[in-house]
Amino acid sequence: MKTISETRLRRDIEANATFGQIESSEGTGRTVLTGSQANKEARDQFVSKLESAGLSVTIDAVGTIVGRWVPKSADPNAEPVAVGSHLDSVPQGGIFDGPLGVYGALETVRSIQASDHKISRPIDVVCFTEEEGQRFGNGLLGSSVATGRTTAGEALSYEDEDGKTLEEALEEIGYRGDSVVDASEWDSWLELHIEQGTRLEDAGAAAGVVTDITGITHCYIDIEGDADHAGSTPMDCRADALAAASEVVLAIESDANDTVETISPSVVGTVGKLTISPNATNVIPGHARLGIDIRDISPEAIETLVNMLQNTVERVSADRPVEISIERPYMVSPEPMAPRCQEALISAGEELDIKTCSLHSGAAHDTMNIARVTDAGLLFAPSKAGISHNPKEWTEWEDCADATAVLARAVAKLAK
Amino acid sequence: MKTISETRLRRDIEANATFGQIESSEGTGRTVLTGSQANKEARDQFVSKLESAGLSVTIDAVGTIVGRWVPKSADPNAEPVAVGSHLDSVPQGGIFDGPLGVYGALETVRSIQASDHKISRPIDVVCFTEEEGQRFGNGLLGSSVATGRTTAGEALSYEDEDGKTLEEALEEIGYRGDSVVDASEWDSWLELHIEQGTRLEDAGAAAGVVTDITGITHCYIDIEGDADHAGSTPMDCRADALAAASEVVLAIESDANDTVETISPSVVGTVGKLTISPNATNVIPGHARLGIDIRDISPEAIETLVNMLQNTVERVSADRPVEISIERPYMVSPEPMAPRCQEALISAGEELDIKTCSLHSGAAHDTMNIARVTDAGLLFAPSKAGISHNPKEWTEWEDCADATAVLARAVAKLAK
Repeated sequence: MKTISETRLRRDIEANATFGQIESSEGTGRTVLTGSQANKEARDQFVSKLESAGLSVTIDAVGTIVGRWVPKSADPNAEPVAVGSHLDSVPQGGIFDGPLGVYGALETVRSIQASDHKISRPIDVVCFTEEEGQRFGNGLLGSSVATGRTTAGEALSYEDEDGKTLEEALEEIGYRGDSVVDASEWDSWLELHIEQGTRLEDAGAAAGVVTDITGITHCYIDIEGDADHAGSTPMDCRADALAAASEVVLAIESDANDTVETISPSVVGTVGKLTISPNATNVIPGHARLGIDIRDISPEAIETLVNMLQNTVERVSADRPVEISIERPYMVSPEPMAPRCQEALISAGEELDIKTCSLHSGAAHDTMNIARVTDAGLLFAPSKAGISHNPKEWTEWEDCADATAVLARAVAKLAK
Repeated sequence: MKTISETRLRRDIEANATFGQIESSEGTGRTVLTGSQANKEARDQFVSKLESAGLSVTIDAVGTIVGRWVPKSADPNAEPVAVGSHLDSVPQGGIFDGPLGVYGALETVRSIQASDHKISRPIDVVCFTEEEGQRFGNGLLGSSVATGRTTAGEALSYEDEDGKTLEEALEEIGYRGDSVVDASEWDSWLELHIEQGTRLEDAGAAAGVVTDITGITHCYIDIEGDADHAGSTPMDCRADALAAASEVVLAIESDANDTVETISPSVVGTVGKLTISPNATNVIPGHARLGIDIRDISPEAIETLVNMLQNTVERVSADRPVEISIERPYMVSPEPMAPRCQEALISAGEELDIKTCSLHSGAAHDTMNIARVTDAGLLFAPSKAGISHNPKEWTEWEDCADATAVLARAVAKLAK
């Protein structure tokens, strides 16, 4: 199937990169927040290209775009095979995260159209709304609605920092539709995305077949000490919230390293967020708040690390004159990918003589949601140095084309 | 000398507390930044009360206010005894920090005027400008100019966050004078200030005679790691700037505790400031900056703790894939108080049957600067629970009056 056009795919992604474009010394990036002018332009171009390729386009209630192609050989009432990703970005993000999967999906249809594959199912090319959650605070929004985790009404009421709702923002750009996509009606789903890690690069593989998407839990810890004068408070009279927080940071790191050895090599624990107050050089920190991210494909490893964190909190509370509270507002379970989707991707790579390897996804993707309602698969393309969410994000065009070729052949297999 | 009027002192401090007043659930506070309308009002009232008490007022180039009283018995050309503090506050500060010393100094003159003490020297009541350094970024400003550490021209050019200079701000409120106070021409200096610690409260003493003012050094540490994805970066591939920073925080605490045991019981080391970036729960911190405050009355203890900090930086740099740099932009030496000033305060307490105790100051005060050019002493009044820079700041009125009585008798001794 040499009908993948690297040139056409590259032209599509480069054209998409002009919307919300930012130039930095380190590369070309983009800021495409849901409902922004840049998002409208990116959507308009995508819809136009879907229609040029003969797909019929619908917009759902939360702005998710679906382009349907019904091949002549297909039963128009058969459950479709769906394939896609997202067009929104983080602020100052890269040009591949999302668009590679969206335009890879369109290129998939074009290549199948130009091939002699016998296709018996419709193919839906999908762009989900607000995958990054950067404007309305809830990531994976479009797929949450398409899988019934969130109602369209609730999602449309989400507000940005200025109090504007998703509904208002979508109406402004003309992408507030009526129907709601129902992913459970899909025969199967595939998404192509950049890896955002270095395992493919390290393995010299052009594509990675995801076995499981990580589970994620977030914990927040508040530490109350006393904000006393740094000069007039003796060392033995202090309730230093930052010193207590530092013990928590190092304990999570150490406990995660231990759990890598004992339970699951893929478990990770991170304190990504720490704010202290009053945050003045000459005042002992009186308050600290930590935001903690724990992930793994093994639920047991996640729970073990959360238990260790609770033990750390108890120990530090006992050792120091501080009060510590912990909350755990967010938990999503690990999701294994459907065996038949993994097999389609692996055999596609073999048939095309494109090297793939199997790996888990440590990042969340819309595919996490879809996997709960139908057979789903996720394919990674290499990320140079693992960098993403950054203008330095890069995937070689040849790797984009090879991963898209694997995607296209796997879709053809699933839709046969 | 029972001519100290607790009622008059209280009325003065309460009237001063109405300028820049803030009401909080926890008490009455104030925000009096140098050159603000609240600062003008506080200065106007102080000048008016100085003049009412028969003092002749001059304003120096940087707005420092001096009220001179020349008793009939005094040689008008003798070097004066000076006494005072400051009227500016931190944002949302308390009502005693500064005003107690300023109005205690005025009350000192009033009480000596009403007594039969023979006084041979003029007495200067002083209010220094910008002690807190909260608007123009340089604390102890007035005393730095009065002791030649900073020129008036340089100080007047300091800018606030909006680019307004100290000179412009002082001109706006009518407190930009011509002459420059020269503290080296003073026979001696005393300042009354709240303790900002709990040692007097713990000792049940009404006043504390300071033996030494602490030396202070500030160090800043920058840690460069890699801001990678918290989900897709395995534990053994991380360069976590916050984890490295946490090691530094705990090492400083532990090293300060050790140095308390081995070299000087009063040494303190604090990481008061820590900012990390990007500071997002799902991203490994790529950068951390720490602001560190180290103080003691023993220069050896300060240098020992700085050396330990440098060793920590070397160890953490070797153990982790991060780059760490350290700078030390600020160092002031410890200052012992003049024995004759301490003796005057101690004997005043004995004669008045007011319990004093000796202690060091862990906070910086204008007296630090003055001690470099003439004999200087510092007297503390108790701070309830050690709280300051906060509307909860409190000193019992009886303690204010007792400490002022000690101050007044000591001034009378020095000026005899």
